Amino acid sequence: MQSLVKLYPIETRTPSLGDNTGDLDRLKKGLSGSLRGQNPVVPFYRIAPVAEAFRQSGFKGYAVAIHVPGGGVRLVDFYAQAPEILVGMALDLGTTHLEASLVDFLSGKVLERAAVENGQLEFGTDILARIHFAATKVGRQSGLSLLHERVMDSIHTLARDLAMRVGLEPTQIMALCVSGNTTMAHFFLEQNPYHLCREPYIPVVNSPDPFSASDLGLDLHPAAIVMVMPSIGSYFGGDLISGIVASGLDQQEETCMLIDVGTNAEVVVGNREWLIACAGAAGPALEGGVARMGMRAGPGAIEHCTIDPDSGKIEYQTIGGAPARGICGSGVIDLVAGLYLARIIDIRGKFRPDQPQAAGRLLAKEDGFAYVVVPAEETDLKEPILLSQVDIDALMRSKAAMYSILATITNQVGVSFHDLHRIYVAGAFGKHISPRQAIVLGMLPDLPLEVYTPLGNSSLAGAELMLADEAARKRCREVVAKVTYIELNVNQEFMLRFSGSRIIPHTDHTLFPSVPFQGES
Amino acid sequence: MQSLVKLYPIETRTPSLGDNTGDLDRLKKGLSGSLRGQNPVVPFYRIAPVAEAFRQSGFKGYAVAIHVPGGGVRLVDFYAQAPEILVGMALDLGTTHLEASLVDFLSGKVLERAAVENGQLEFGTDILARIHFAATKVGRQSGLSLLHERVMDSIHTLARDLAMRVGLEPTQIMALCVSGNTTMAHFFLEQNPYHLCREPYIPVVNSPDPFSASDLGLDLHPAAIVMVMPSIGSYFGGDLISGIVASGLDQQEETCMLIDVGTNAEVVVGNREWLIACAGAAGPALEGGVARMGMRAGPGAIEHCTIDPDSGKIEYQTIGGAPARGICGSGVIDLVAGLYLARIIDIRGKFRPDQPQAAGRLLAKEDGFAYVVVPAEETDLKEPILLSQVDIDALMRSKAAMYSILATITNQVGVSFHDLHRIYVAGAFGKHISPRQAIVLGMLPDLPLEVYTPLGNSSLAGAELMLADEAARKRCREVVAKVTYIELNVNQEFMLRFSGSRIIPHTDHTLFPSVPFQGES
Repeated sequence: MQSLVKLYPIETRTPSLGDNTGDLDRLKKGLSGSLRGQNPVVPFYRIAPVAEAFRQSGFKGYAVAIHVPGGGVRLVDFYAQAPEILVGMALDLGTTHLEASLVDFLSGKVLERAAVENGQLEFGTDILARIHFAATKVGRQSGLSLLHERVMDSIHTLARDLAMRVGLEPTQIMALCVSGNTTMAHFFLEQNPYHLCREPYIPVVNSPDPFSASDLGLDLHPAAIVMVMPSIGSYFGGDLISGIVASGLDQQEETCMLIDVGTNAEVVVGNREWLIACAGAAGPALEGGVARMGMRAGPGAIEHCTIDPDSGKIEYQTIGGAPARGICGSGVIDLVAGLYLARIIDIRGKFRPDQPQAAGRLLAKEDGFAYVVVPAEETDLKEPILLSQVDIDALMRSKAAMYSILATITNQVGVSFHDLHRIYVAGAFGKHISPRQAIVLGMLPDLPLEVYTPLGNSSLAGAELMLADEAARKRCREVVAKVTYIELNVNQEFMLRFSGSRIIPHTDHTLFPSVPFQGES
Repeated sequence: MQSLVKLYPIETRTPSLGDNTGDLDRLKKGLSGSLRGQNPVVPFYRIAPVAEAFRQSGFKGYAVAIHVPGGGVRLVDFYAQAPEILVGMALDLGTTHLEASLVDFLSGKVLERAAVENGQLEFGTDILARIHFAATKVGRQSGLSLLHERVMDSIHTLARDLAMRVGLEPTQIMALCVSGNTTMAHFFLEQNPYHLCREPYIPVVNSPDPFSASDLGLDLHPAAIVMVMPSIGSYFGGDLISGIVASGLDQQEETCMLIDVGTNAEVVVGNREWLIACAGAAGPALEGGVARMGMRAGPGAIEHCTIDPDSGKIEYQTIGGAPARGICGSGVIDLVAGLYLARIIDIRGKFRPDQPQAAGRLLAKEDGFAYVVVPAEETDLKEPILLSQVDIDALMRSKAAMYSILATITNQVGVSFHDLHRIYVAGAFGKHISPRQAIVLGMLPDLPLEVYTPLGNSSLAGAELMLADEAARKRCREVVAKVTYIELNVNQEFMLRFSGSRIIPHTDHTLFPSVPFQGES
C-alpha cells in the first residue's frame, strides 16, 4: 500500500571532485531506487531547506516524500534522525464545531482527537446566514475573507493543541484532509458561496485538486498536502462522501442506507454497484435548534426521556448527568414520542389538555399550551424547561420531511424499506437518537431496531481514512464518480409524501404496524 | 507535438437543476475529451479566477493549459475570446547582460527580442565577486537577497518592455525559460552559491523542477511555468546545455565541438552518441575585461583591426562605426596577431621596440612598453587607446589556456582536431572573433576557417527552443543524462599543455602549418 506521506532512508556518497552532482540532484538520484523511477518534484520553496538539511546531515538520513493522489511524488523535507511519528491531521469542518485528529503515517493509527467551536458562529449560527454575511463588507474586509480567517483560526487552534499533545510543532504536520459540507468547504478555500443557495445551486468547485498548506497560508508544514473531500453539489458535501467511505456503504453487497441529519437531511442509498443520494431541508428541530429550550447535544442536554403512558410521569437523562439545561434533538424525539404514547398529544401533534396524563404538566401560554418537561426547581437555570406547541409543530414538519425524503429516494430506486440491510445514522443524531422513538413518531421506517447502526463522526472518520488508507482514497474517487444525486427541492413526489407524513406515525398507519395507533379514540 | 502552453476551445451546457456540477468541475469535464483523459490540476490560487472567468464567459471560450514537462497538465486561465498570441519568455541570464525574447505558442515564432544590463553589476562585475558579496549583509538584508532582487528587477524590466511591444501585460506571459551559468541560476533561484566556488564545487541544485511564477514572486502570469535550464556542475551551466540544444551538437552524426568563451572557457565535444564537456579558467582577456582599454563588445569598441606587416600602419573598425572608446575581445585578438605578424612582438608576446614597424607607436611606461592603438586625437575620450605589455601577457595566458583546454579534451576522448566536422563558437566571442587571427595566435587549432561556425546567443536560442519545441525539451533531458564532465582544475595533462602553449603560435609550431613562424630571426 502506498502511504500518503512516507519516510525514505537514504545514504549517498559525499561530494568530491570526481562526483560533483548538486546536493538536491544527489538526493534525488539516491532516492530513485526506492521511488522506482518516479521523479520526485521538490516544490520551489523547499529547495533550500531540503538541500541544506541533506548536506547538514552528512548526506544521509530520512527523506520525507508526499505521494500526491492523482499522481506525482513531492520531496518536501529531510531528517537526520528517523522520527518516531509522522503525522497528518484529519478535520471535520462542522458548521458549529470543528473536530480533528492526528493520524500517524508510520503506524496508521489515530493518535489524538480534539474539538473547538467554529469561530464563524458570531457571524451566523446557520449556513445561510453566513452565506449572506460573506457578501457583506466589514470595514475594508469582505465577509468572505473574515469567515475564512475565522475558520483558519479555529483550524490553527486545533493544530497547535493536537501537535502539542504528541510533542510536535504544528509545522511538522505533513498533511490535512478536510471534510465538511459544501459551504464550509467554500469558506475554507475562500471561494465565493453566492451561487450555493441560489437556483440552480452551483458550487465554484466540487473536487478541488490537492494543494499545499503554504498556498492557503496554513501554519502547518509549508509543503503539507491539503486535500478537501469532494462534494457532489451544494447540498451534498464532502462530509457525506466521508460518511459513505467510513461506513463502507460503497462496498456492501446488500443495499444499505446512510442518513446524516442536520438542518438538512442527507440520504444515500446503495451498495457496491450503485449509489443514489438526495438531500432535503429537515428543519433545525432535529438538531435541537428550534425548540425554545432546545440545545445542541452537550452537557446538561436532555438526551433521553420516557413518559409512563398511564401515569404521565416523566423520567429523563441528561448528557454527562449534569442538571438539565435544555433538550437536544434526541431528547425532543423521545419526548414527543412519549407524549403521543401517553395520549398527551394527538396524531396531529396537538396537545390534549383534557387527558389525565397531562394533569399539572400543561401551561397555557399566549401561543398555545406548553408542556413542563422539567420544573424550574430541578433545572440549573432555575427556569422550567418547556416544550411548546410551536416546538412540536416544528418537529412534526421535520419528521414529515425526514420520512418523505426516505420514502421518496427508496421509491425512486425501486427499493422497499424492508430491502435495506442496514441504515447507518451519522453524527450526533445517530449517536444519541433512540430509533424506536423515531419510529413511533413515523420519522424513521418501522424496521427491526438492529437495522439502525450509529456511525459517530463519520465525517472525521472518512477524513482519517483518506490519510491512512490508499484504498479509501481510491474508493473516494470512485464514489464521487458513482453517486447519482436527485434534487428534491423540485420533486413532486416528495411534496405529496410530505403531506401524508404529517400524522403520527403516518396517514397510512399500516406502514407502522409496531406503533399503537391512537387516532379517533 | 505537445505545446508547452496550449489553448483549448470549449463550450459546455449551462448549469441547471438537472445538471448542477460545480463551475470548475464542469470546465474540467468539458476538457476531458481534448485532454484525452489527463486530469488537469487547477493550482489553488487559480480556482477563483478560472471558475469566475468560465462563468462570466457564459461557459464557453478558451481554456489555457500548461503541459508541465515531466508530467501533468495545469489549467491556469480562461479567455472568452481566442487571443491572437499566447506568449512565453526566453531569457539568457548573462553575467553582464540579460537578453530575452517572446515566443508565441500559437505560431511557434519568436516575436520580439530585448536586452538590459544585469542589475547586479554594481555588486561585482565578475561572478566570483558576486558570490562573495552574496555572503555579506547590507543592513538587515543578505547580499544574496539583494543580488536576487536585482536580477528580478532586470527580468521585470525586460518582461514589461517585451509585453508592451506586442500589446500585452507582463501578467499575460505564460511561461519563462531561463538559461544562464550555474551561479546566475543560483542567484535567480535565491539559492546559496557558497559551495560553487569552493572545492569540490557543488551546486545546491543542477536540475530544479519547473515551478510557478508566483512561487518566486515574478510579475508574470501567476501560474506561468518557470523552467531553468539544467546545469551539469558549478562550471558547466544551463547556458551551455542551451548551446548544445541550439547547435544540435547532440544530433550530429560526425563529431563536432562547441566553444563558449567568457571568463571561463567551456567546451563540449561529441555527437549523437556521446558528449564530453569541460571548463577551464581562460581569464577575462577574451571578454575585453583585462586590457586597461578593454571593454565589452559595444558601440565604439574596436572589434577588428589589421596591421600592415611591412609599414606597421594600423587600420581598425569599431562596433557601430562610433569613435573608438576601447578594444573588445575580438579586437585584442586581431591586434596581438597583427603585432606578431608585423614583428612588433616576439613569439613570447614581448614588445620589440627595435623593430621599424613599431616606430612612433610604443610608449615607455612604468610597467613596460605600451602600444598606441589609437592616438588621443582620434578617440572619443581624448586619451590614447593603449595596449600594454601587461595586457598582452594576460592575453597570452588566456590563449594558452584556451588551446590547452581544447587539446586536452580532444586528447582525452581520442579525437584529433582534424576529426572535428564543425566547431561552433557561441556568444559575442563567436560573433566578433576572426578565427584566422585566433589561429595565428595559437588560440584555436589550425583548421580550415569554414569549420568555425558562429552560433550567436545560443543560450537564448536554446531557451527559445525549450519553449517552442517539445523535441528540444526531450533532447535537453537526454543531453543532461548523456554529458560526461571532466574536471580540468585538477588535470595534470592540462597543466603540461598550458606551459607548451605560451608561445605564438605554439612551442610545437608544426601544429600551426598555416602560421608564419617568426622565432629567432
